[in-house]
Amino acid sequence: MSFAPLQNDTFLRACRRLSTPHTPVWLMRQAGRYLPEYRDTRARAGSFMGLATNKDFATEVTLQPLDRYALDAAILFSDILTVPDAMGLGLSFALGEGPRFAKPVRDEAAVMALAVPDMEKLRYVFDAVTSIRTALNGRVPLIGFSGSPWTLACYMVEGAGSDDYRLVKTMLYSRPDLMHRILEINADAVAAYLNAQIEAGAQAVMIFDSWGGVLADGAFQEFSLAYTARVLAQLKREHEGEPIARIVFTKGGALWLDEMGGLDCDVLGLDWTANLGRARALIGGTKALQGNLDPNILFAPPARIEAEAIKVLNSFGAPHTGTGTGPSHIFNLGHGISQHTPPEHVQVLVDTVHRHSKRMRELPSA
Amino acid sequence: MSFAPLQNDTFLRACRRLSTPHTPVWLMRQAGRYLPEYRDTRARAGSFMGLATNKDFATEVTLQPLDRYALDAAILFSDILTVPDAMGLGLSFALGEGPRFAKPVRDEAAVMALAVPDMEKLRYVFDAVTSIRTALNGRVPLIGFSGSPWTLACYMVEGAGSDDYRLVKTMLYSRPDLMHRILEINADAVAAYLNAQIEAGAQAVMIFDSWGGVLADGAFQEFSLAYTARVLAQLKREHEGEPIARIVFTKGGALWLDEMGGLDCDVLGLDWTANLGRARALIGGTKALQGNLDPNILFAPPARIEAEAIKVLNSFGAPHTGTGTGPSHIFNLGHGISQHTPPEHVQVLVDTVHRHSKRMRELPSA
Repeated sequence: MSFAPLQNDTFLRACRRLSTPHTPVWLMRQAGRYLPEYRDTRARAGSFMGLATNKDFATEVTLQPLDRYALDAAILFSDILTVPDAMGLGLSFALGEGPRFAKPVRDEAAVMALAVPDMEKLRYVFDAVTSIRTALNGRVPLIGFSGSPWTLACYMVEGAGSDDYRLVKTMLYSRPDLMHRILEINADAVAAYLNAQIEAGAQAVMIFDSWGGVLADGAFQEFSLAYTARVLAQLKREHEGEPIARIVFTKGGALWLDEMGGLDCDVLGLDWTANLGRARALIGGTKALQGNLDPNILFAPPARIEAEAIKVLNSFGAPHTGTGTGPSHIFNLGHGISQHTPPEHVQVLVDTVHRHSKRMRELPSA
Repeated sequence: MSFAPLQNDTFLRACRRLSTPHTPVWLMRQAGRYLPEYRDTRARAGSFMGLATNKDFATEVTLQPLDRYALDAAILFSDILTVPDAMGLGLSFALGEGPRFAKPVRDEAAVMALAVPDMEKLRYVFDAVTSIRTALNGRVPLIGFSGSPWTLACYMVEGAGSDDYRLVKTMLYSRPDLMHRILEINADAVAAYLNAQIEAGAQAVMIFDSWGGVLADGAFQEFSLAYTARVLAQLKREHEGEPIARIVFTKGGALWLDEMGGLDCDVLGLDWTANLGRARALIGGTKALQGNLDPNILFAPPARIEAEAIKVLNSFGAPHTGTGTGPSHIFNLGHGISQHTPPEHVQVLVDTVHRHSKRMRELPSA
């Protein structure tokens, strides 16, 4: 496949820890319900999965935030649970509720029936990737993604979101053999899935370990981190001569940052509980850092949003401006943007990140 | 007031970082729905608040787990939200749901109407403390408690539990002046409340910062930690010649352990995400540590519960056995026990903690 040359490479350069004229910014869930144009498209699509499984709709909503804001990357519009859906668990989204699986994986028979799904069942995702990459026409790079093996396992066993993770942790502690089996299959499936996204046109891939932070110290390393590493070990490192940026985001994972520093990836995402300056001191010598504004700050008045965005940029500290590699920051939220966010506040945020981060490069002490 | 002399002082000695013959253990929410005898008493009381506001019922349920298990401390049966209820916000518990306030604090007028409540409105709590302490008859010490100023503010603004803390964080970022005003009042109210519990017979007091961990780095220090410190500064340090142990537990707070190490308290509680060995290295020289088994481990078979309890004890490491002060561990869960816990599994846990921690004192390398 051949796509238009990239016009804005700040995000990919930052992933590779190369200097950039400003700090690149994109937002988790940037194509979403806070945008009226997204709500219009979703209404036409009829449902969330109607949106996600139709490449034209998926392309349309992926590009919507780029038409409003000077974002430095696009991210595939999809869901983290497409892989277990392709395993036959029956994903659905009831209105006003989260995702739900018709056939949760709760006993040995269900675990033994699991297998890496035929990637043809996920063709709609890869078609969307190619369609979006084509429609982007080189404006910004495209990020593909998947849930982490552990995060997928949480949903697969619980059957839905959970407050206490009782079912999945009961399996983990009572039948660790079954949990390891699920995680092996998930890891191999996620790797195949992300590689197919890369072949379809994704220039970076992100693993969302949304629920890694609910695990105990020790269990996190054994049941989440090890399987994220198993995915990374199988990922394509380049495609058609271009390096592929690999990002890992563990919500609530800042406690284990030193251990995550050993992952074979380019970027680690951090939520707002982390101090970017400390994270930089710990792992900034080998990994780019992505994050970490609390999305609730977007409910504050513009002056406060500006002040808090500047605080995040300053907490990372002076940008590297040399010709080699160095500490590198990609601005993002510490979690997906809320559906209640006023769209004009996102404009304030994106513009502030660009303006202040340019100033930081001019005046290193800003 | 005069109470029977204390027979088991392991918990209070451990709080003061003095050596003990075994690692003391108690469990957050140890008097609760997982016990059939608790469910019987609650049925007689008619409701949760019916239980909490009647000193005889509160005494009965507080002592129930002590009759089953060799726990080393009792904790007042009450709720963390009694203080805002006494402020007039109208606390209720709908069946199968969490707490709810009839009059949440959402605007300037509501904030300006707040005041430290007359402690006479909380007399039922202090009466329960005295009744429980009397009924304990010196078996184990009694812990009193309150929610932290920030955690109370979360419920007061949200009006109930929350997934995203949108309302309280919107106030925090949009009107920090109002948030500081709420927190000042809460801190002074919590201090008065805990001091009255101490006067009524509580031998230790614990501040539950259940929602401190949802704050961004920087915001945690300004809106949670500073007001916990404001409570501690006002607390009685001793009562009738006996030192009062002061415990602070921030769920999700292990990232800020070094800063919490500066609090004027005796014990810091940790959830299961923390590594006790690292925590000990960081602050074990000045604070006792309390925690941190994932309560979901109690759903596993007994052999696994034993193994995981031993893992927690070993992660803290060799107990101090000298005559002065030294690193000190109080075993607990990292969160309240689940209502679905099999009661016989708690027996396995308590017995394992006692047995293995005695062995650790005999064989320092166990």
